[in-house]
Amino acid sequence: MEAVTSTTVVPPTHTQSVSGWAAMDASSGKVEPFIFKRRALGAEDVAIKVHYCGMCHTDLHFIHNDWGITMYPVVPGHEITGVVTAVGRDVAGFKPGDRVGVGCISASCLDCDHCRRSEENYCDKVALTYNGVFWDGTVTYGGYSRAMVAHQRFVLRVPDALPLDAAAPLLCAGITVFSPMKHHGMLDCAAAGAALGVVGLGGLGHVAVKFGKAFGLRVTVISTSPAKEREARARLGADDFVVSTDEKRMKAMARTLDFVIDTVAAQHSLGPVLDLLKVDGKLVLVAAPDRPVELPSFPLIFGRRTVSGSMTGGIRETQEMLDLCAAHNIACDVEVVSTDGINDALQRLARNDVRYRFVIDIAGGQASL
Amino acid sequence: MEAVTSTTVVPPTHTQSVSGWAAMDASSGKVEPFIFKRRALGAEDVAIKVHYCGMCHTDLHFIHNDWGITMYPVVPGHEITGVVTAVGRDVAGFKPGDRVGVGCISASCLDCDHCRRSEENYCDKVALTYNGVFWDGTVTYGGYSRAMVAHQRFVLRVPDALPLDAAAPLLCAGITVFSPMKHHGMLDCAAAGAALGVVGLGGLGHVAVKFGKAFGLRVTVISTSPAKEREARARLGADDFVVSTDEKRMKAMARTLDFVIDTVAAQHSLGPVLDLLKVDGKLVLVAAPDRPVELPSFPLIFGRRTVSGSMTGGIRETQEMLDLCAAHNIACDVEVVSTDGINDALQRLARNDVRYRFVIDIAGGQASL
Repeated sequence: MEAVTSTTVVPPTHTQSVSGWAAMDASSGKVEPFIFKRRALGAEDVAIKVHYCGMCHTDLHFIHNDWGITMYPVVPGHEITGVVTAVGRDVAGFKPGDRVGVGCISASCLDCDHCRRSEENYCDKVALTYNGVFWDGTVTYGGYSRAMVAHQRFVLRVPDALPLDAAAPLLCAGITVFSPMKHHGMLDCAAAGAALGVVGLGGLGHVAVKFGKAFGLRVTVISTSPAKEREARARLGADDFVVSTDEKRMKAMARTLDFVIDTVAAQHSLGPVLDLLKVDGKLVLVAAPDRPVELPSFPLIFGRRTVSGSMTGGIRETQEMLDLCAAHNIACDVEVVSTDGINDALQRLARNDVRYRFVIDIAGGQASL
Repeated sequence: MEAVTSTTVVPPTHTQSVSGWAAMDASSGKVEPFIFKRRALGAEDVAIKVHYCGMCHTDLHFIHNDWGITMYPVVPGHEITGVVTAVGRDVAGFKPGDRVGVGCISASCLDCDHCRRSEENYCDKVALTYNGVFWDGTVTYGGYSRAMVAHQRFVLRVPDALPLDAAAPLLCAGITVFSPMKHHGMLDCAAAGAALGVVGLGGLGHVAVKFGKAFGLRVTVISTSPAKEREARARLGADDFVVSTDEKRMKAMARTLDFVIDTVAAQHSLGPVLDLLKVDGKLVLVAAPDRPVELPSFPLIFGRRTVSGSMTGGIRETQEMLDLCAAHNIACDVEVVSTDGINDALQRLARNDVRYRFVIDIAGGQASL
């Protein structure tokens, strides 16, 4: 297929032609080859050859304009790993050849309380890595592309112990579960032995199980799919597995969990899972169902339970997570697809038919890096 | 009207005849005079002449069997104040003539972690003051009655500075908002100056405003009813008032509140109010809508906000609250009704037509006590 060339007006500072893959409108539901401009390397910018890009459910939402905020053409992808090819004159921390990653965030104000604490993800001027608006006013393009230009503040180092393909989804799926687990004390020494429930065993859930086990939690997977029990236990090391429609088992588990990570992006009721929490137990919602979830008041108030939200993570804690993953030998379980296979993978992703994350081999067979 | 006499089988230890008011079945929607037995004074029991009993929305739910758990005949009432008439031989803390109160709880296991921390309200064997099951297996009868027998553990002292009528609703409405406000740090010195939103200005909401002002918070009332602005500001001292359907004002208030107490018992979406919270802001749901509230994921996750539930409070913190109310000159704003007026008041309560709590003058004109 011939690549479409961007007709969007770009400022004169955007001089680098990059080829990638974009959804051109809401009706197609797929991506196609697309050539567009990225900015010339600024003083604090890092140029990156993209090797791998993970495929997140959010990509589907933006491709289909499910949230009504897509600016077409949209180049998805915010789970990006690759190698530095050049750095701006004021970049001290990176040099060509470094193994790096870019996650969900491309810019923030750098000046608010959140940015000062490296919680850039909660800055109210945060710009996403794609379909965001960068400081220069241009729309950002993501990692379904051969090259990135990123401000050094938003570039992560990928430790040598992590393969670039299996590390890519850590930049979104990984940090999305790691950040609330850390924030709510689940990874403290004091929490060792505590009981964690992971609702939904997909891209996010399978990493949550790995973090839980690495930090000494007792992990129960809660899923609608009995077929996942075997892999949850054997492959991921979960201690227990419960089918959420098994009322008898769910009832027997009432008031046994300290924490729950709910990764389900479909509309659902929080009631059955809240009942599994002890008094003062905490449930964290990390997915973004299109429609409101149902929150019955009784299981919430009778147990003084808490439902929190969390959206990705800040840059400092993302680096901390990558370093911990290297130390604990944690990476995502991925299915690597070629650039010719993106649309097939998008279709399978829409059916949740993936173990557990698709990663696009953008550079083509350089997995050894 | 002639009083119905209970035909329920009672154990031989229940020897005291008491007159009260009960709903006899789900269809009537009202109470009628009812004579029943209470237990003889046990070694650790306190006998109380009931002077006042507040009328809580929960009473309506039980009278109408809205939750499908009412055991008829039901004698409602869990906001009880009165005077001690006798004490059992092992009661050291109370003596005849003492001004006392009884709230929502009549028993708990006394032995679990929650009971040991005086969080009897979260004990999984907690027995409510009415429609509960006491240690002896009998169904409990509440404060719409002339006399109570309560175990000393569950009896509160009403400080002299608090009038018995205006203090009665503190035992439920008051502690229901005080407990989460304390638990979530809203009443700490560190919180002084923080911004509290109170959603709904009824029995619970008006006390939340008073606590907020007493502890140095900046209080904004959020209500569907523009007519309440004047009283919210002038009578209760609220700093600000917002009509929740005023989209422009609501939008202007985005990310300005540290805490929200949501007292609305009708089904509603938490989304518009969550948007008012800062990052890490906390919303506490204290009412019990019959149907699940709607929890949209975006306002929850984008601000790492928290929704918690809370159900009444423990005995120790209830006493602490009463003592603080005496010190800060806080009591409920009440409309006192006679025992002949209970059913009219129930009808008005169903329409939320009360400023802000009905209190039944059970003993008849002894308000000076």
